[in-house]
Amino acid sequence: MEEFDIAIIGGGVTGLGAAVYAARFNMKTIVFGGRLGGLIQDTHLVENYPGFKRLTGYELFQNLLEHAKDYSNLVDIKEEFVKDVKKLKEGFEVIGEKSKIKAKTILFATGTRRKKLDVPGEKEFNSKGISYCATCDSVLFRNKVCIMVGGSDSAAKEALLLSEYAKKVYIVYRKEKIHPEPINMKRVEEKIKEGKIEIINNTNITEIKGDKFVTSVIFDKPYKGNKEFKCEGVFIEIGHLVESELAKKLGVKLDNKNEIIIDRDSKTNVDGIYAAGDVAARDWKQAIVGVAEGVIATNSAYEYIQEQKVK
Amino acid sequence: MEEFDIAIIGGGVTGLGAAVYAARFNMKTIVFGGRLGGLIQDTHLVENYPGFKRLTGYELFQNLLEHAKDYSNLVDIKEEFVKDVKKLKEGFEVIGEKSKIKAKTILFATGTRRKKLDVPGEKEFNSKGISYCATCDSVLFRNKVCIMVGGSDSAAKEALLLSEYAKKVYIVYRKEKIHPEPINMKRVEEKIKEGKIEIINNTNITEIKGDKFVTSVIFDKPYKGNKEFKCEGVFIEIGHLVESELAKKLGVKLDNKNEIIIDRDSKTNVDGIYAAGDVAARDWKQAIVGVAEGVIATNSAYEYIQEQKVK
Repeated sequence: MEEFDIAIIGGGVTGLGAAVYAARFNMKTIVFGGRLGGLIQDTHLVENYPGFKRLTGYELFQNLLEHAKDYSNLVDIKEEFVKDVKKLKEGFEVIGEKSKIKAKTILFATGTRRKKLDVPGEKEFNSKGISYCATCDSVLFRNKVCIMVGGSDSAAKEALLLSEYAKKVYIVYRKEKIHPEPINMKRVEEKIKEGKIEIINNTNITEIKGDKFVTSVIFDKPYKGNKEFKCEGVFIEIGHLVESELAKKLGVKLDNKNEIIIDRDSKTNVDGIYAAGDVAARDWKQAIVGVAEGVIATNSAYEYIQEQKVK
Repeated sequence: MEEFDIAIIGGGVTGLGAAVYAARFNMKTIVFGGRLGGLIQDTHLVENYPGFKRLTGYELFQNLLEHAKDYSNLVDIKEEFVKDVKKLKEGFEVIGEKSKIKAKTILFATGTRRKKLDVPGEKEFNSKGISYCATCDSVLFRNKVCIMVGGSDSAAKEALLLSEYAKKVYIVYRKEKIHPEPINMKRVEEKIKEGKIEIINNTNITEIKGDKFVTSVIFDKPYKGNKEFKCEGVFIEIGHLVESELAKKLGVKLDNKNEIIIDRDSKTNVDGIYAAGDVAARDWKQAIVGVAEGVIATNSAYEYIQEQKVK
């Protein structure tokens, strides 16, 4: 089995940024990215990665990928999901969809996956009016009435983008008040004035109905006297589930949100295992912070390997 | 006195990156940067700010500056050093060289300044053969014999750059072995093979001599039988002193290196005061990490201000 100094599990910006630094530490590095670029490539507009005034998530991902590929003598990038990890006497075994390797250290940069609403009709009409990515699909909903489910900054940003295309966007949120970043709240308020966005608070969707495509949703309480609401698009942006199962299997401590607990050096409770980015515990998550956590992790991994050599 | 939500003291990449985020939180922001861009603009080649494969420190600074200026409706950038800070009943007073303002919160992104050798001749021949910045001055030493004092990664990088111009670079280091990043150690080793760099370990410089310009240095032990060593350039890259005096004055806790102690949220021990970047305690410092710490600080400051409103 080929042996690496560090296996980076996750090919998003966090994993790719870490790969750059791992190579600069002269570490033999493998990156497993089942979906290279991760979730950020679905982001239409990134204005908050300091140094780039404004670019798409896809462009940011490409910049990081090119940066990592610049060290191709040391960095092997595999477009594979990792199926399993095992603790060996020394180091770890990482089993991808096609590859099987040994690694002295592991960095979990596995991020998150999108949460589903989990209501009748959601599976049936997926990609038939239901979307989890306004960045990807807004253009298909030109002049249509759409719903954006969620109250986060991401939901607001997605609603703003969608409103550039849709006839009108109804933000449906289960709690009292949506809570985007202030700058995006302002933008939503402007769209409300223009009549392009409306917010329906304290409301859940209990079913999505349609024939070939979505035709309506059912609310758990009446909106303007009616629980059935006609619409042609349903965008779901209700948060994420943390991809920490493999880490847990290796004995890594998670918090009550299943996020991996790390310290300021991106160390987990298990020697030789590090975590960074959206999979790591932190209340407020940002691309730039994830990248920095990944960078810090490579330094910790490098020092760990040096110490092991001395022992 | 004009009042701001946040005063960012320091106009390096950390302070500028934080300004972007502060504005995105809709905070009225002032940045004091006596020397905008800070020390990174003396770095010839930045290859390790993930997203930018390769650029000069000056270019990176300019990118950050442009990014911050994109929020000029909320961000006021003053090219002033801060002379004093005071705690008020509510918030703080910040006294610059020309401006005097009130701020609800302060972010110290004050960084470091260069350490001096502190030997006879150092003051006298400053800018007459002595330099603290190979990035700035290498070109002046074409075909000359130069010394680079220091053993860090920065010293190695500076020596590598200088060796592109100088006849030969002697790295003089007081301890046993220089300790750059592995990738830069490799590069130094190649230059040693080419005869462009030589390392003189376990040696201190006790004096710098010259007439109009530097002509020699005195070592504390003989090199090839002689304590006097002829050279035309002396570059000094022996580390930095932390700019934490103002923070200390406000009761902020420092560690034994005078670095400001922060937690994972970039909070200091004093409510409403944050720190990030080279002034903040961390063993291994990187631009990308400083920027992320600054970004995190703005979120903490924003939440602090929101809490104060409720009280």
